[in-house]
Amino acid sequence: MNTVVAGVDVGGTSIKSFLVDSAGHVTDAVHLDTRPGNVVEQACHVARTIVDKWPEVAGIGVITPGVVDEEAGVIKYASNLELKNVNLAQRMQEACLRPVRLGHDGRAAGLAEGLLGAGQGAPTFIMVPIGTGISAAICHGNRPWAGDAFSAGEVGHTPVIPNGETCTCGQRGCTEVYASAKAIARRFTQKTGKEATARTVEDLLGIDPIADEVWDTATYALALCFAHLTFALDPTRFVVGGGLSNAGETLLEPVRRHLRDLMAWRTPPEIVTARLGAEAGKWGAAILGAQAANRQMWNDWKINDGYRAMC
Amino acid sequence: MNTVVAGVDVGGTSIKSFLVDSAGHVTDAVHLDTRPGNVVEQACHVARTIVDKWPEVAGIGVITPGVVDEEAGVIKYASNLELKNVNLAQRMQEACLRPVRLGHDGRAAGLAEGLLGAGQGAPTFIMVPIGTGISAAICHGNRPWAGDAFSAGEVGHTPVIPNGETCTCGQRGCTEVYASAKAIARRFTQKTGKEATARTVEDLLGIDPIADEVWDTATYALALCFAHLTFALDPTRFVVGGGLSNAGETLLEPVRRHLRDLMAWRTPPEIVTARLGAEAGKWGAAILGAQAANRQMWNDWKINDGYRAMC
Repeated sequence: MNTVVAGVDVGGTSIKSFLVDSAGHVTDAVHLDTRPGNVVEQACHVARTIVDKWPEVAGIGVITPGVVDEEAGVIKYASNLELKNVNLAQRMQEACLRPVRLGHDGRAAGLAEGLLGAGQGAPTFIMVPIGTGISAAICHGNRPWAGDAFSAGEVGHTPVIPNGETCTCGQRGCTEVYASAKAIARRFTQKTGKEATARTVEDLLGIDPIADEVWDTATYALALCFAHLTFALDPTRFVVGGGLSNAGETLLEPVRRHLRDLMAWRTPPEIVTARLGAEAGKWGAAILGAQAANRQMWNDWKINDGYRAMC
Repeated sequence: MNTVVAGVDVGGTSIKSFLVDSAGHVTDAVHLDTRPGNVVEQACHVARTIVDKWPEVAGIGVITPGVVDEEAGVIKYASNLELKNVNLAQRMQEACLRPVRLGHDGRAAGLAEGLLGAGQGAPTFIMVPIGTGISAAICHGNRPWAGDAFSAGEVGHTPVIPNGETCTCGQRGCTEVYASAKAIARRFTQKTGKEATARTVEDLLGIDPIADEVWDTATYALALCFAHLTFALDPTRFVVGGGLSNAGETLLEPVRRHLRDLMAWRTPPEIVTARLGAEAGKWGAAILGAQAANRQMWNDWKINDGYRAMC
């Protein structure tokens, strides 16, 4: 029998949904623009529409940003979505009469990298998506660590440089201030007056000494962040994702070098790029859908020629 | 029936052992001076002597420092004890014909604080003993986090002050360089030329501005370490143990204040002192002994008037 599960990715801009079958084939489903204040109704509408159109769907996984209690199926707080204390899993389940499992978008991405991607084979790995911000999904035994207040992994706001540059969070010296893609662009622009993206800065490495300095500071701040996580948790691997990971070895090699310098007496963990890229969260939603349906079908999704881009 | 279990604490200086009965009453057993190079034979001798003298002993827990694989019962490496890749649990079990469970001394202390002490009621707490050095036992669901290479919790060597003062580990700016009891004494002596202990420095607070400055730097470094752990793991509570925790609120109050300043946008975890003090590891060994015997007897060890000093 060809079991089909659905994933729903509820973001601040859009709600995307898709189906995955036993073989890992992906079919696009309903897309909507997010209307904050009305998100529960929108998510329920999406779930109902999917099941009306594809009655064979056996389970649905839904992911959101914010403070998410996966076990209870409750969004405690999600500012972008204007949601507070909503049992989204139950609401969607009532709307579509299929089992629904809720996940946090970042942790769902970690779940997917662990089961299908670059986290495979590591007892513990830490997935670190680097884009506008920086966060971490601490993954052990395919259960990303949520934290007691569902706020674990906020490593973008750890003070790696005490009394350093000011962050939008109100603190100083946060990892994000130096090492996010946004920070790399901003710091280069501040020093040169030139408009830039992280990609521009990357392209100027070895040509513009200011680009070199900004990149080196970013990779040093990341290594400091990784050093803290390593000494505390002793993981096997870091999996770097998000837009900045497209820089590949240009990013990873200096992070590895700085990390080695920061741990004189122990071997640093491996550092690799994510395999599922920007799609990791969506694959995580599909896995949650399969878990909701009680089908371990993701093992058959391991395909050699990479993963189809989703939605 | 009065079940009795034994604990064996194998340290670099001495091997101590003791019995605990169903009611939590403690009886001293065999003590030896540690002879590095001969530790396995010594521990086996202790186990055999205990069982010869008290045949009612149903299980034995043994704790050691070093790199310890609890699940396998193996000491991977313990420099003070001159041990490498030894299945101590199995060796002792063969010697005394009772089930034996091996634990890491720091994680066993966390286990005990969680089941009997200041960690009770917290889904996740982080126990931080502060003495000559600083380490952490990350405790969730009564299973202290060991790490993939059994090296988790080395927060004494995280670089909280990048490019800070030099540490014996070969790195710079480690938590331990500023915040261990030894560091507080050393930094005061360096600045004043006067011999001191951490206790001397504590007694000079509000009298000697250099004591104030050294203490403030120590509590700030600790707060930085706690901030990193909080952003990554989101625990409910920090439990501070070791000799320095005898300073009580004189230590905790400034750490709380610095920690609040380091997390503008989230509530910091609670910070409390350990309840079992220097005995936590030994109570952990007794719990491991009860686990080896498959008896959850530690629930009856919760007594209102505190715990008897052990050995």
